[in-house]
Amino acid sequence: MKIRDFLTEQWMNEYERQARFNLTDTSVQAWSAGELLEKEPEALEHLVLDYGYIPGDPALRKEVLSLYQDQREETLTFCHGALQGNTMIADILLSPGDHVITIAPGYQQFVEYPIHKGASVDVVELDEENGWSLDLDKVRQALRPQTKMLFFANPSNPTGTWTSGKAMEELIELCRMHDLWLVCDEVYLVPDGHSLSVSDLYEKAVVTGSLSKQYGLPGLRFGWIKGAPDVIAAIDVYRDYTIISCGPLVERMALIALRQRASLLQAAAERIARNKAVLQSWLASSPNFSCHLPEKGSVAFLKIPDAITDSADFARQLLEQTGIFFVPGACFGKEGYVRMGLGQDIDGLESVLQTLEEFTRTYLEEQRG
Amino acid sequence: MKIRDFLTEQWMNEYERQARFNLTDTSVQAWSAGELLEKEPEALEHLVLDYGYIPGDPALRKEVLSLYQDQREETLTFCHGALQGNTMIADILLSPGDHVITIAPGYQQFVEYPIHKGASVDVVELDEENGWSLDLDKVRQALRPQTKMLFFANPSNPTGTWTSGKAMEELIELCRMHDLWLVCDEVYLVPDGHSLSVSDLYEKAVVTGSLSKQYGLPGLRFGWIKGAPDVIAAIDVYRDYTIISCGPLVERMALIALRQRASLLQAAAERIARNKAVLQSWLASSPNFSCHLPEKGSVAFLKIPDAITDSADFARQLLEQTGIFFVPGACFGKEGYVRMGLGQDIDGLESVLQTLEEFTRTYLEEQRG
Repeated sequence: MKIRDFLTEQWMNEYERQARFNLTDTSVQAWSAGELLEKEPEALEHLVLDYGYIPGDPALRKEVLSLYQDQREETLTFCHGALQGNTMIADILLSPGDHVITIAPGYQQFVEYPIHKGASVDVVELDEENGWSLDLDKVRQALRPQTKMLFFANPSNPTGTWTSGKAMEELIELCRMHDLWLVCDEVYLVPDGHSLSVSDLYEKAVVTGSLSKQYGLPGLRFGWIKGAPDVIAAIDVYRDYTIISCGPLVERMALIALRQRASLLQAAAERIARNKAVLQSWLASSPNFSCHLPEKGSVAFLKIPDAITDSADFARQLLEQTGIFFVPGACFGKEGYVRMGLGQDIDGLESVLQTLEEFTRTYLEEQRG
Repeated sequence: MKIRDFLTEQWMNEYERQARFNLTDTSVQAWSAGELLEKEPEALEHLVLDYGYIPGDPALRKEVLSLYQDQREETLTFCHGALQGNTMIADILLSPGDHVITIAPGYQQFVEYPIHKGASVDVVELDEENGWSLDLDKVRQALRPQTKMLFFANPSNPTGTWTSGKAMEELIELCRMHDLWLVCDEVYLVPDGHSLSVSDLYEKAVVTGSLSKQYGLPGLRFGWIKGAPDVIAAIDVYRDYTIISCGPLVERMALIALRQRASLLQAAAERIARNKAVLQSWLASSPNFSCHLPEKGSVAFLKIPDAITDSADFARQLLEQTGIFFVPGACFGKEGYVRMGLGQDIDGLESVLQTLEEFTRTYLEEQRG
């Protein structure tokens, strides 16, 4: 069965390579293989490229488990990126006729993939006026007898919404009461003592993580699935049919990355903080733009003037005329916004934002024209 | 929805690392990353690990296309191994209620995965007496109005069955008459002027290939899907939801491999020929074993004595007592055989086979008791 176009991904595929200033990339600036191998230059020399350990290299499994409070081996399996992890969870947990609740604006995968599996999906709108927060009452209203899971990214793409603390406790309580799976794509999260994975909070949670966003290594296509042991066991059977293993090459590079994660993550945090500071200062005096800059993650949803009713046209013309690249809100089913990435090195971000402001003024004038 | 255990893969996972003499591995002896990088030692130095080209690196696409007669760009997409490619084809082409025909003994994926998709599957038994050939009449008898595709590996695992020439022409004619997709896992094939991919013979063929078997590089987890452009286009949309890309690291290594494929494939051919010669000479005088050694591919199905009715017990005891490792016929739903790999370097294969013979004699004596 075919599946609907993935609008964000297609927009990226079509335009990304024309970008001079990529202000929309969700990943932190990517490292090169050479940079990663600097501290272990001989790491690949004798690495035999057979299937490797089917459940994953034991040393790498240990490193990934160390990110979580629950470090039981049976709570973890590996996959080619969190995106694939999300599909595997849906493949195992969903049957035709099941009902899924997700959030909007959000990542289109959580809507279309369950539909592709024969499930139905209801979308809960995030509270725009309240910093894109999740309103639990709306989740309650979306519940049906067939509801099987809540399925969303936390932190979310494109809004950066991070449901945690008391809000997450209440959400978990709701899931527990209705016996729901809580499936969270945590690709924008690096769990630590202050920010727990929901897999450490709820017994029917299954989450995904990867090295693609905060670690700046999407090119490894390495991720994992973490959570309820019976789901992990079923996915391990399913992996034999779908991937066998992630392979020793990618796993060795992932191990090297996780061993030096302190420095990778510090560099990422500094990049994001630097970009946020420039953005905040610009937003404070911008006549046209506003944004709820998120606490976590590397994406935000930038509000463009209400008068711009076709975000795709705006983004396309902006790219053509200035080289500034955004994914338009239209790709997330939400006009009035563009998706902004916070983790790239942009030469002279201040002046790029100034160019954006000037282009927008002219665009609005021509529109009134 | 869960899926049934994949018996061969689970057997491999459980026992493979105990093997001293792995006589069952389907891949040609794996290369190390260092060996592969010998001719291009700087290849990874400046390789940025972003998502890379979403449809795949253009130079790599060109190399893969060069394996086929039909070299149109729209006939090719990349994936993490042929195994994954097979699932993607099924994901796009199959709907609940469809009917699939596959062959036996064969790779369990072609039975269970369609069933997991809600399809029904009929299995056509290969002609054991006639070198495991495919009997077209049996395919005809298995046809139903709902039959959507033929789905099998060619050459096949575990029998090495290679359907080609006139037999393949007739099979294609049958598919054409009934408007069937012909989906062939060609992971054991390296297409050349003498051995054509079925994607070059039939307009409704979709095939998979990879570097895992003949190229000795399963650790790259790199493969491709080749065939009917409308299926490839639908899979490209689907890839956005499931993998995004294969990533620049794996693709660069794949490019290096394909650029030196003449030497990789020659080494593989020599290994297989050497092992076949030793096997043939042993089989000629073996009182207990016989085998139809296949024309193509790197696997064969070794006939064990009829008196051994539990191939799993035989294989387990053989491994424990001698370190010789086989996947038993039971994993393929066929007693009386073990699956043999032809592409590994086995130190002193003659004497290992002698050990196998001696163990078997004792095993039979103990069985008679």
